[in-house]
Amino acid sequence: MSALETVEEHRSHSGVQGVYRHSSASTGTEMTFSVFVPDHAEGAKLPVLWFLSGLTCTHANVTEKGEYRAACAEHGVIFVAPDTSPRGEDVPDDEAYDFGKGAGFYVDATQEPWARHFAMRSYIERELPALVGKHFPVDLDRQGITGHSMGGHGALTIALRNPARFRSVSAFSPIVSPLNCPWGEKALGGYLSPDREAWRAYDACALIDDGARIDHLLVDQGTGDDFLETQLKTGLLIEACEKAGIAADIRMQDGYDHSYYFISTFMAEHVSWHAERLAR
Amino acid sequence: MSALETVEEHRSHSGVQGVYRHSSASTGTEMTFSVFVPDHAEGAKLPVLWFLSGLTCTHANVTEKGEYRAACAEHGVIFVAPDTSPRGEDVPDDEAYDFGKGAGFYVDATQEPWARHFAMRSYIERELPALVGKHFPVDLDRQGITGHSMGGHGALTIALRNPARFRSVSAFSPIVSPLNCPWGEKALGGYLSPDREAWRAYDACALIDDGARIDHLLVDQGTGDDFLETQLKTGLLIEACEKAGIAADIRMQDGYDHSYYFISTFMAEHVSWHAERLAR
Repeated sequence: MSALETVEEHRSHSGVQGVYRHSSASTGTEMTFSVFVPDHAEGAKLPVLWFLSGLTCTHANVTEKGEYRAACAEHGVIFVAPDTSPRGEDVPDDEAYDFGKGAGFYVDATQEPWARHFAMRSYIERELPALVGKHFPVDLDRQGITGHSMGGHGALTIALRNPARFRSVSAFSPIVSPLNCPWGEKALGGYLSPDREAWRAYDACALIDDGARIDHLLVDQGTGDDFLETQLKTGLLIEACEKAGIAADIRMQDGYDHSYYFISTFMAEHVSWHAERLAR
Repeated sequence: MSALETVEEHRSHSGVQGVYRHSSASTGTEMTFSVFVPDHAEGAKLPVLWFLSGLTCTHANVTEKGEYRAACAEHGVIFVAPDTSPRGEDVPDDEAYDFGKGAGFYVDATQEPWARHFAMRSYIERELPALVGKHFPVDLDRQGITGHSMGGHGALTIALRNPARFRSVSAFSPIVSPLNCPWGEKALGGYLSPDREAWRAYDACALIDDGARIDHLLVDQGTGDDFLETQLKTGLLIEACEKAGIAADIRMQDGYDHSYYFISTFMAEHVSWHAERLAR
């Protein structure tokens, strides 16, 4: 588990932006991820913010377009961006952009041919934090998580299932209920059993309905997002949080779409919001 | 000249990031460029900052990775990023990354087969400003220019040849003297006459030696840039400015390389520096 290969490192925003590769036991493949480490006092351990990416993305999209480094350097926060699925010739795939490679949906697949490699839940919940904790100066008692679209779904569900691990959770245009949208039905139907009860552990609204709780939540959602009505359905999350008494700041941002032009606009606010909650 | 096609527009950082296409008389091709327009009072005309990109780039690199929008929105500055060469099947090319498409060097080529299309000097100096002035709310009395590497060379030489047009000029890791580096010798030797006297109009240090002046200059150059010693030779610009009495703030940035991880780090400072000089 512990071997880590440095793919590239760049000085950036008074820190180091790196890309790293390792052999993952969870997925049975090599996995690549990026880490930004701001300059810090020798021996210091910094809080860490996880960013889970959306459909078709790798670590590279947010690393290049996310505009998080200035804010992370200002607040002394380490930023980790994992890949969205296993990769490689041995890994099964689907022709569609929303299933297979680039579309892991942060689940542990139970159906063939996916079960062997598609273990993104275990990877993000257990393997990668241990690896990052071993190789980078992170304080694992101070973790926050965010993500975009499918990665917003990942951030919400992982935080709801692991409330003790995360002090803060936010999301950009998340899929809030895979049970209630075509992307979710296809992915969870394919990776998991057709039994929709098995999907509830991977559905933010269902987890909340079933009693999972987080203390606070920040969500930004563009009103010009083409996926809002059909796939994202932010209203379901607003309802679930209201019913559960979760203090959710869910902001509809006028005219913004689903792209990194939207994400980068609000990234600094998210980093700052997490940093407040991750302070000692 | 006046027809402008909108390729895409995105709401971003309280403004609109667009990509546009038009038929260029200078290059005899379609040309694509990006423009960021911050929100502004109706009827207001904003200052404009031109960004010229480096070898292999199009408008897209800085548009996606440049991290300029937050600062441009804060200061009310329009940001325009042109392409680096003509494009299209009719346009001659070279196998190398540093000649032909993606490597226009901001010259008006005089040699065949380049002379027909490679007129990037005329395009940036005359055609594009007129087009941008017609279609966007820019105040053409308040223009600044910057760029990276080959585009830093472009920014410096265009500003030195047109001091009345620009109130401010800066550069990121510019090629400061094509007369004295392999990239420059290959490009100017190919696009222009083998007579090196003809190159002096496209060499920042030679222009300064020959009497061209600008009031101020800001340059950032990474010390970890692999091209520093062989191609960029920042020291020649420092010498030329000292000799000419040009107030140049040329900053060697410890450990930074030639990538957009470097550019994005110092972009906000450059935008702010230009904005000060472009205030009414």
